[in-house]
Amino acid sequence: MIPPIEILGLCAAFFTAFSSLPQSIKMIRTKHTRDVSGVTFSMMFISHLLWLSYGIFQMAISIIASNVVAITMVSLVLILKYIVWKDEELS
Amino acid sequence: MIPPIEILGLCAAFFTAFSSLPQSIKMIRTKHTRDVSGVTFSMMFISHLLWLSYGIFQMAISIIASNVVAITMVSLVLILKYIVWKDEELS
Repeated sequence: MIPPIEILGLCAAFFTAFSSLPQSIKMIRTKHTRDVSGVTFSMMFISHLLWLSYGIFQMAISIIASNVVAITMVSLVLILKYIVWKDEELS
Repeated sequence: MIPPIEILGLCAAFFTAFSSLPQSIKMIRTKHTRDVSGVTFSMMFISHLLWLSYGIFQMAISIIASNVVAITMVSLVLILKYIVWKDEELS
């Protein structure tokens, strides 16, 4: 059986990994990105990259997996803001 | 001397803790919150709360401290979006 503390960690990792997804969905639905802070999502990108390196050093699969997912999700937000709807940024 | 892996963890924790701050600053400066996903920041709030519980169970001061800061930063974004400039939400 998985120890309760590991279940807590897995739940936390799940929310960390997928928390940026609703922001992407909102951007796709509304086609608006102006109010979203690019600095915040860039800092999130860096933090997940650092946690990924940490996970690789520690050989911790759960840290590696959750941060790979998180990097993908945060990248999607940054791509939508700066590439797909960059005109909105410039207006 | 602090081991390199711990320095990596501390850098990651720093970026995690403060990544929401630029979003709050942008909201305060522009007075606009419409495009920011409340679901994303609510999920971030839950994730930091779960990591905080995890840190308390593990008695890991760095996890506790970085998540207390992160919860404060994310709360500020949610307060700005849903309390301070809630009229923007309704418009």
